[in-house]
Amino acid sequence: MIEAVRWSPSGDAVRIIDQRVLPGEYVERDLRMLEEVRDAIATLAVRGAPAIGVAGAMGLVASLEAHVEEPADRFLDRLRAHAAAIRATRPTAVNLPWAIDRMLATANRAHERSPRALLDSLRAEATAILEEDRQMCRRIGEHGESLIAERARVLTHCNAGALATGGIGTALAPVYVAAERGRTVAVYADETRPLLQGSRLTAWELARAGIPVTVLTDGMAASLMRTGAVDLCIVGADRIAANGDTANKIGSYALAVVARHHGVPFYVAAPSSTIDPAVPDGDSIVIEQRAADEVRRSFGTLTAPADVAVYNPAFDVTPAALITAFVTDRGIVRAPYDFRAWNDAGGRR
Amino acid sequence: MIEAVRWSPSGDAVRIIDQRVLPGEYVERDLRMLEEVRDAIATLAVRGAPAIGVAGAMGLVASLEAHVEEPADRFLDRLRAHAAAIRATRPTAVNLPWAIDRMLATANRAHERSPRALLDSLRAEATAILEEDRQMCRRIGEHGESLIAERARVLTHCNAGALATGGIGTALAPVYVAAERGRTVAVYADETRPLLQGSRLTAWELARAGIPVTVLTDGMAASLMRTGAVDLCIVGADRIAANGDTANKIGSYALAVVARHHGVPFYVAAPSSTIDPAVPDGDSIVIEQRAADEVRRSFGTLTAPADVAVYNPAFDVTPAALITAFVTDRGIVRAPYDFRAWNDAGGRR
Repeated sequence: MIEAVRWSPSGDAVRIIDQRVLPGEYVERDLRMLEEVRDAIATLAVRGAPAIGVAGAMGLVASLEAHVEEPADRFLDRLRAHAAAIRATRPTAVNLPWAIDRMLATANRAHERSPRALLDSLRAEATAILEEDRQMCRRIGEHGESLIAERARVLTHCNAGALATGGIGTALAPVYVAAERGRTVAVYADETRPLLQGSRLTAWELARAGIPVTVLTDGMAASLMRTGAVDLCIVGADRIAANGDTANKIGSYALAVVARHHGVPFYVAAPSSTIDPAVPDGDSIVIEQRAADEVRRSFGTLTAPADVAVYNPAFDVTPAALITAFVTDRGIVRAPYDFRAWNDAGGRR
Repeated sequence: MIEAVRWSPSGDAVRIIDQRVLPGEYVERDLRMLEEVRDAIATLAVRGAPAIGVAGAMGLVASLEAHVEEPADRFLDRLRAHAAAIRATRPTAVNLPWAIDRMLATANRAHERSPRALLDSLRAEATAILEEDRQMCRRIGEHGESLIAERARVLTHCNAGALATGGIGTALAPVYVAAERGRTVAVYADETRPLLQGSRLTAWELARAGIPVTVLTDGMAASLMRTGAVDLCIVGADRIAANGDTANKIGSYALAVVARHHGVPFYVAAPSSTIDPAVPDGDSIVIEQRAADEVRRSFGTLTAPADVAVYNPAFDVTPAALITAFVTDRGIVRAPYDFRAWNDAGGRR
């Protein structure tokens, strides 16, 4: 299985697969400097809610390596500044602030140590975040595979696969586990405009894993469902509110509406780190607005008048009422949803 | 107003705006040879159900010009062969076979004339088809403008504007007429993957006409509606069955489903030539499947694995039950729909 985020062999950098150039090119990049980490997250070289949490935590460590000889006070100030800068890179996915807050909590516990010892603690914490993410993905897959019947046809949106996590993905984890267990499963991948994570990334990683995949444009999912060709939808999540309202890649809400219209189950798969009990409902989730040229200039070509107005939110919110169930690392959760006490039950530290 | 299809100044060619290169370039092309006409229709240099009917009829005339010195029998055989070839270029829009059948009926009435006289009759008939299309668009606009309140926000899909017809469009005709009459109206244009007729063409022609337009990707329409920003949807049609089921650009059905979910009216605007009383319902409409590379290679860039499977129907069918009303050249038609006798009422010859 591919590894979207890992330590470089020397351990001083975060090694990522650059997801901007897939599927045309396969490029790995090592992130060391703060601006490299921020740029990789902002430009979606590394993307997917779980993966940017992991990359943010590991990137924080890598960005501090060059400063470990600084006096302890200055190093601690720098740590906090770097953490704040990385935390602010993208607003919607909760995993990034969640991971950075875990790193800051570790720093607070270890702040009297030398910079080197403090950095070692932070490295251990980032590695734990990566390892836990990998395990959460595996558990999502094991809980979710019961939803995937023999010859199931699964429709997914965006990429919530291995490329989006430290492990085997979230939405795709049940597919991978079902395939591991010998089941035949086919995936339809919405291409997911504007950045085409479905056709570029989901199709690429599934093909690489030998799982049959068919790409369609986002507007085709409804007519495909009308033909009876889709048994279930599974998508990932960027932030899940306490009441179950779920922010995910733009287009997910449209898919949930058309799935409901056709009686097709619509599942959201996510690790505990994506649940944000502090946010009561979807209306409280901040939605990132991205640049107009993502829509106007599609992969280098001018595909709209150069100065036309564009509506380009990166995410939308699917109300809990349209979600058949959540597939989490702790099991399948069905309505009524109440994630207010999710923390207390051990999902987060 | 732009003219998507017209006679060249010398009258021996069909002059079209090449819609494959908009909005980056504005290129007019003159079609004379049969293969030029077929290629322009097949590659969507000229597109839109009404426009391909008009271009097919005019193109038939242009393609025969070089053969007018042939013996009458041979010329008549050629006429029928060219007509059959143009008729078969695209299968879904009814306007193309409708226009060609009108041309053949004219030929049958005039078949004893000399090739030159026959061609003159055909030219007059093609010019009449163009002129009637222009008038039908105008009447659609005049009937439909009552749906456009002051400050209305209209969402449309694909391009059913001036570029798709011989006149001011179908879906956009009510917008143009409302604007002419001094009303403020804003349009949201779905970009309409895979070929982006919304962002490339609708946005271009509306901007050129001074009407405010905002582009969004197809998957964003649902979340835009959820914010209350859309007052009504209007789309065009490629073929309307006797019971009102409507084939239109892929993604229209998805839009109809999300419009219904949000209580937003969903209108289909079309001239009489788009209604096919011979087709009882949507299941009987042949849907064109297009090449996988329209999805895999988006404007020259590889945006999916090169050999991945693709689902790429050019159209989908919206069941009549999801259509609030039809806006036709004969007025606004509300449910229950019954177009079986549409011919007899004078809409077609």
